[in-house]
Amino acid sequence: MRDRLDEIPFPDPGQVYELVRAALVEDGAFRDVTTQSIVAPDQQGRGNLLAKESGVICGLTVVVTAFTAIDSEIELRTRAVDGDWVHAGTEFASVVGPLGPMLSAERVALNFLQRLSGIATATRAMVQAAGGLPVRILDTRKTTPGLRSLERYAVRVGGGYNHRFNLSDGILIKDNHIAAARSRGLGIAEAIRQARALSPHMLRVEVEVTDLDETREAVEGGADVILLDNMGVPVMAQAVEMARGRCLVEASGGVTVENVREIAETGVDFISSGSLTHSAKALDINLEVMTAELG
Amino acid sequence: MRDRLDEIPFPDPGQVYELVRAALVEDGAFRDVTTQSIVAPDQQGRGNLLAKESGVICGLTVVVTAFTAIDSEIELRTRAVDGDWVHAGTEFASVVGPLGPMLSAERVALNFLQRLSGIATATRAMVQAAGGLPVRILDTRKTTPGLRSLERYAVRVGGGYNHRFNLSDGILIKDNHIAAARSRGLGIAEAIRQARALSPHMLRVEVEVTDLDETREAVEGGADVILLDNMGVPVMAQAVEMARGRCLVEASGGVTVENVREIAETGVDFISSGSLTHSAKALDINLEVMTAELG
Amino acid sequence: MRDRLDEIPFPDPGQVYELVRAALVEDGAFRDVTTQSIVAPDQQGRGNLLAKESGVICGLTVVVTAFTAIDSEIELRTRAVDGDWVHAGTEFASVVGPLGPMLSAERVALNFLQRLSGIATATRAMVQAAGGLPVRILDTRKTTPGLRSLERYAVRVGGGYNHRFNLSDGILIKDNHIAAARSRGLGIAEAIRQARALSPHMLRVEVEVTDLDETREAVEGGADVILLDNMGVPVMAQAVEMARGRCLVEASGGVTVENVREIAETGVDFISSGSLTHSAKALDINLEVMTAELG
Amino acid sequence: MRDRLDEIPFPDPGQVYELVRAALVEDGAFRDVTTQSIVAPDQQGRGNLLAKESGVICGLTVVVTAFTAIDSEIELRTRAVDGDWVHAGTEFASVVGPLGPMLSAERVALNFLQRLSGIATATRAMVQAAGGLPVRILDTRKTTPGLRSLERYAVRVGGGYNHRFNLSDGILIKDNHIAAARSRGLGIAEAIRQARALSPHMLRVEVEVTDLDETREAVEGGADVILLDNMGVPVMAQAVEMARGRCLVEASGGVTVENVREIAETGVDFISSGSLTHSAKALDINLEVMTAELG
Amino acid sequence: MRDRLDEIPFPDPGQVYELVRAALVEDGAFRDVTTQSIVAPDQQGRGNLLAKESGVICGLTVVVTAFTAIDSEIELRTRAVDGDWVHAGTEFASVVGPLGPMLSAERVALNFLQRLSGIATATRAMVQAAGGLPVRILDTRKTTPGLRSLERYAVRVGGGYNHRFNLSDGILIKDNHIAAARSRGLGIAEAIRQARALSPHMLRVEVEVTDLDETREAVEGGADVILLDNMGVPVMAQAVEMARGRCLVEASGGVTVENVREIAETGVDFISSGSLTHSAKALDINLEVMTAELG
Amino acid sequence: MRDRLDEIPFPDPGQVYELVRAALVEDGAFRDVTTQSIVAPDQQGRGNLLAKESGVICGLTVVVTAFTAIDSEIELRTRAVDGDWVHAGTEFASVVGPLGPMLSAERVALNFLQRLSGIATATRAMVQAAGGLPVRILDTRKTTPGLRSLERYAVRVGGGYNHRFNLSDGILIKDNHIAAARSRGLGIAEAIRQARALSPHMLRVEVEVTDLDETREAVEGGADVILLDNMGVPVMAQAVEMARGRCLVEASGGVTVENVREIAETGVDFISSGSLTHSAKALDINLEVMTAELG
Repeated sequence: MRDRLDEIPFPDPGQVYELVRAALVEDGAFRDVTTQSIVAPDQQGRGNLLAKESGVICGLTVVVTAFTAIDSEIELRTRAVDGDWVHAGTEFASVVGPLGPMLSAERVALNFLQRLSGIATATRAMVQAAGGLPVRILDTRKTTPGLRSLERYAVRVGGGYNHRFNLSDGILIKDNHIAAARSRGLGIAEAIRQARALSPHMLRVEVEVTDLDETREAVEGGADVILLDNMGVPVMAQAVEMARGRCLVEASGGVTVENVREIAETGVDFISSGSLTHSAKALDINLEVMTAELG
Repeated sequence: MRDRLDEIPFPDPGQVYELVRAALVEDGAFRDVTTQSIVAPDQQGRGNLLAKESGVICGLTVVVTAFTAIDSEIELRTRAVDGDWVHAGTEFASVVGPLGPMLSAERVALNFLQRLSGIATATRAMVQAAGGLPVRILDTRKTTPGLRSLERYAVRVGGGYNHRFNLSDGILIKDNHIAAARSRGLGIAEAIRQARALSPHMLRVEVEVTDLDETREAVEGGADVILLDNMGVPVMAQAVEMARGRCLVEASGGVTVENVREIAETGVDFISSGSLTHSAKALDINLEVMTAELG
Repeated sequence: MRDRLDEIPFPDPGQVYELVRAALVEDGAFRDVTTQSIVAPDQQGRGNLLAKESGVICGLTVVVTAFTAIDSEIELRTRAVDGDWVHAGTEFASVVGPLGPMLSAERVALNFLQRLSGIATATRAMVQAAGGLPVRILDTRKTTPGLRSLERYAVRVGGGYNHRFNLSDGILIKDNHIAAARSRGLGIAEAIRQARALSPHMLRVEVEVTDLDETREAVEGGADVILLDNMGVPVMAQAVEMARGRCLVEASGGVTVENVREIAETGVDFISSGSLTHSAKALDINLEVMTAELG
Repeated sequence: MRDRLDEIPFPDPGQVYELVRAALVEDGAFRDVTTQSIVAPDQQGRGNLLAKESGVICGLTVVVTAFTAIDSEIELRTRAVDGDWVHAGTEFASVVGPLGPMLSAERVALNFLQRLSGIATATRAMVQAAGGLPVRILDTRKTTPGLRSLERYAVRVGGGYNHRFNLSDGILIKDNHIAAARSRGLGIAEAIRQARALSPHMLRVEVEVTDLDETREAVEGGADVILLDNMGVPVMAQAVEMARGRCLVEASGGVTVENVREIAETGVDFISSGSLTHSAKALDINLEVMTAELG
Repeated sequence: MRDRLDEIPFPDPGQVYELVRAALVEDGAFRDVTTQSIVAPDQQGRGNLLAKESGVICGLTVVVTAFTAIDSEIELRTRAVDGDWVHAGTEFASVVGPLGPMLSAERVALNFLQRLSGIATATRAMVQAAGGLPVRILDTRKTTPGLRSLERYAVRVGGGYNHRFNLSDGILIKDNHIAAARSRGLGIAEAIRQARALSPHMLRVEVEVTDLDETREAVEGGADVILLDNMGVPVMAQAVEMARGRCLVEASGGVTVENVREIAETGVDFISSGSLTHSAKALDINLEVMTAELG
Repeated sequence: MRDRLDEIPFPDPGQVYELVRAALVEDGAFRDVTTQSIVAPDQQGRGNLLAKESGVICGLTVVVTAFTAIDSEIELRTRAVDGDWVHAGTEFASVVGPLGPMLSAERVALNFLQRLSGIATATRAMVQAAGGLPVRILDTRKTTPGLRSLERYAVRVGGGYNHRFNLSDGILIKDNHIAAARSRGLGIAEAIRQARALSPHMLRVEVEVTDLDETREAVEGGADVILLDNMGVPVMAQAVEMARGRCLVEASGGVTVENVREIAETGVDFISSGSLTHSAKALDINLEVMTAELG
């Protein structure tokens, strides 16, 4: 089978371009009063992308988009690809071309690159903590509004997998849905039946459960997947046992690098973590202009 | 003078509406197969916004926008306003109205609310760490692409101040500009002169300096503000001395809750921190639907 | 369980509004030189929506959107709801309000209404032809570019069900995918395995097959659903037998009102038909202005 | 004079690109989970466009746009041009290039091509039915919302002509306008006068009439064109007589391939038919991937 | 017949709203640092719109749109309507409501109002100069990019009439088209014939001529209208004579308030002037805030 | 220091492209019925841009954008650059390529070019009138909605300078702000203080004053710049005296080519004039197609 990393599909380039254009406009990159008054129009430059801390690089295509969106003559020369681990102090790419536009787009390029590299780095840490166990680390829908496609890409670059993209491509019956069903006299099994009856037939049904009673109800009701929400590890293990051979099992809630291995050892198929996208620390990366080389 | 918090201007509501609409579409909120097959069209509901950890609430207007964008009959009843500190376990607002759309918009509302509250909380921590000293805590341009207006608002709600919005409303001569100028034989003073000559007269000129030589050059060149980049505290104190009465002083680089007070005590006018926006942890907030009240 | 028709979710109203606005602009409704020069600005009117042939009405919400988008004082008074069968000659709704804008928006309102009613009518015919048998009539992705949400809604109003919305919410391994896999030495079973390994876990895997050998390969390879493409009815029956108890079965290709019952009787779970959306005849509907009532 | 087919102007390519992009996004073409997990990123392919039934090909430029919008390396090699009649079984073009994106864009390309070819085919049939008579077959404003430019192009490719594009480029006083005028005490002649007085001077005035009295009123009132709405053929002939040498005559209402010749023989100048665009059957066309050639 | 001014249709309000929103964003009205730091959030105000010079008021609806787009509580109280002549020093309307947003939107409101009033005033002057003669003063396509609808409205408010809206709603064979035709061996008559053969039948054909030879060619070729381009008055009179009873006549080129009457007296039907829109002086109008009334 | 004209930054090309596309659509350039029926698809042409009056050329980049946006094969061959003074009768550029699209885009190209050249010409006149004196001629925010970037560029091409771009990049306390402050008991000095306290630290504070009392108040209150609004020249001179060495001085209100020198001689640093953008006469420029060269 093909090497996994090779085939991570990059999001719609048209959408990425629109995001980058909007970010450049937001940042006033086309009215950069400082650069336009100090850098000569014909000045060429070279800047090195320098990792100030160690981590997984992610987003080089976005960096190219940002620089070429402002000036098509700027070129990115890379010494790493998305997914590479770089050590603090590594210059992993160079930007070469007209200096003025390069400086005007620098911040936007870095804002994307640092965020995506941060997410990939956090994912890599969690994946490695569960290393060797047959479990997938998943993202969630707790992504930055507008950036979901890119952030999911970063999770895959980091070694994780993607959960459903959004509310339309997966049936996930959560606590609030169960509450809604119960208030109308329906149990979990009826909710599952109704979801199947009224939704496209190509979607699986996953059910969020919080204790063993609900677990049993969901498994017996025919759920394809159950989501163990914030369960303690021992209970989780019992739930896994109950589901064995009947449905897949996902664990979620309070997952950290510290406890992910213990959770994985219960035998769950998936572990999902919102913090990968909503709270990842940006990776510190700089653009350092080489004065010696300025023409 | 007016109470500061009262007058924090909320960003362009039209732009916020567009961001929220785009986020709802991104999340498939109008094709929520789970909710549409389980929740009855006429079912009413009530959900409580519950802080799972302590922090500063920020973004309630965005929450209202998200819920009313999907169904104008949903109402938010608040027991807190932006800027309030809430303790873990507090239910600070309730969402009341049609249950189906409420569940379909829940994630988008929370994604905004958790991020903005996270930024406000991180800012509040830094402001309090420097409490009592005549210094402003500032944001930077290291914001999430597309969300700058909202994130800057969150910094102010947290007690901080805003730096320039973007490249068009402030002249900030950074290390790379100085390098570009030097490569053409111009010193800092000439760069300042040229920036003034070619830019709108209503913008001040700030210059980034990394040591005392550059500080002297910038101050004597007539900078309105100098930005001390990653200087050690003792050197910073000397720079402040050198600038006294001649220009304002901003410190930046590696600022943390731990060291912000020490930096502030050097007498700088401003301390800016990118981590407030690029690496703030989301505040953990849930929507808990009240089953007892479901009609 | 709830009445099925009651709960058909209408597409995103914001998107529908945008479609209607664009259609009004496309039709020059705001520069209607005829109406603006002949109808007095203060003239009120009443028009009846008249079915010139029998069929299922669908799209009244879009009609309301079209008229109110041009003038918020226009009102639609309905004597039917989406899904009702009306006989030729029935006036099923009235439009009341300012006459000028009513005439300017008439064509756009009818263009949507006639198309959606045509689709609902064609679907109803096929559903009734298979009446009493445990099969779902499904739409396909062969919809009008830009109008998929509305056209899928019309299929449901007509009594049909929806297949996957698009390429992101269902894994359907078609003939061309199988060819691509085979050219790399992979059989159907490996293709299924690879799709599961690299896609979100909440999507089922459906496989298109054209003969009994492929059917066996897909069923034994673990497909959740098989799609019998353009098979003759006797072969189809054998394929259904082969799949019994192991996976769901969809039939497609050359489905008509005439042969749908015969296909359904083979025991397939789903029958999908592109002609419901790509070739449905528009239902003939007029707006007749009542001169007697003009003020 | 130039060959007519050569000079049919294709619609605004920028608008067509936007339509195609929107259709690709609607179809999830950039998140095609099946293709992305089964087709190798570097796999090249060749697909043949095969007419499954006979008809007029229309829309090859849109096909090119769809494939290059997803991957600029995909190439279309054509053996036919828009307007060519192809027989069932003909492979009239090949698509060559990266296989994954080709499959992801296939449906969108075909949805446009099948619809436009269907319209061109229906138009060709009607034009040929009236062959040899000095009459123009016209489209109407009964087009698919958003696709008017393309559908009018298809009518011309089929051999027909275009009526006014929309409400702003032609004065057409219809039954409802006449009713509105009469209710204010104005006859047809006054309506014509008023339309001329208040509209740009470069537009002709056409009047819809339903019987000979109205025909006389319109002709004597100075109409440039009269539109005979749903008249029987004998009455139509009398109306043509009445208009001879004084104004042009258009027939509309219930036009079919069967009756178009009889209508044309009355001597009308134009025959318009909404069914060309609102009810044309899509032409059945497939993309067949050549497995032998897959690399 | 109805009073002419009453029925001037205002452009598409949706488009006007978009123009106004874009202008507010362009002007930074939602980030008005001055107003947001000086005016209290709850401060109410009243501003008077004062004509600093005499002229025709035009654009009050746009003014309302601008103020309500920023704050729906702002109200416009008018003492004049579009088309009224106001004398220098007249306060013709008041703006009442929240003071901060009022000041933030002031410039945008005035930029529209001053431009449109300037165009209406220039038009009124030309109309009055030709007063009593049976001629229409027309605008041209020499309008501000993006503002054509509004500027054409201003011409009508000033008493003028509109030429074709754009290239799609009128056939105007200009000097460059004639040159193109001639280079292919076609004369004016053939060009007219070809235009009729290939364009929608509801458009008249107008031909631009520069001397009497071309005039004769166009009249005899069957033009509906001829456009006398930059002819001297005596020649113009001869051309009018030549066209009498056969086609309408428009004069254009170098029209001024001084010479318009002399041109009109030649008997032309229309006089068009680009300067009405491309070079009209803005009417000087101020917003004066009443301090006495500030709450 | 670099030559000033060389470094005038052209506005965001992406935005200019959007403006041009919108203008082409507004003008119906893609549905040009005249050109499409008279000019042969393969006809090539050459048109000369001819200045019908003397002035400063500005906007050649926009001209290129307009022609290439409609057909990428059209080429502009220039004999002048933005900022050049051309005499009446000069052919300063040629357009070469497909003739049909060239004619369809002609009006849009000229509408931009004439307006921008008009502004540049008006600015040049005022700059020259003040020639030799140390004063900057400035634009204002009285620009055409949507075209501010281009119009500001034209002012610079004409030799002027730009004031703040919009309300977000400069603090300008105007009469209405002072009135608002006073009504709450605050004087000019307090308003300045408050503006500084609540706005980004990189913006200067300018205060509009109308007499010497206010001038004193503003200067002593610490304004960075004062704006003398509609003051007589003698009073202006006194105000300049009062401000000397303490703040910069801008004059505004009623500035003309006739009085600008007298105002400049008072010693003000800046003179701003709204008429440069809101009332500049378009420069008369034609596109003359060369028939001799038509192929």
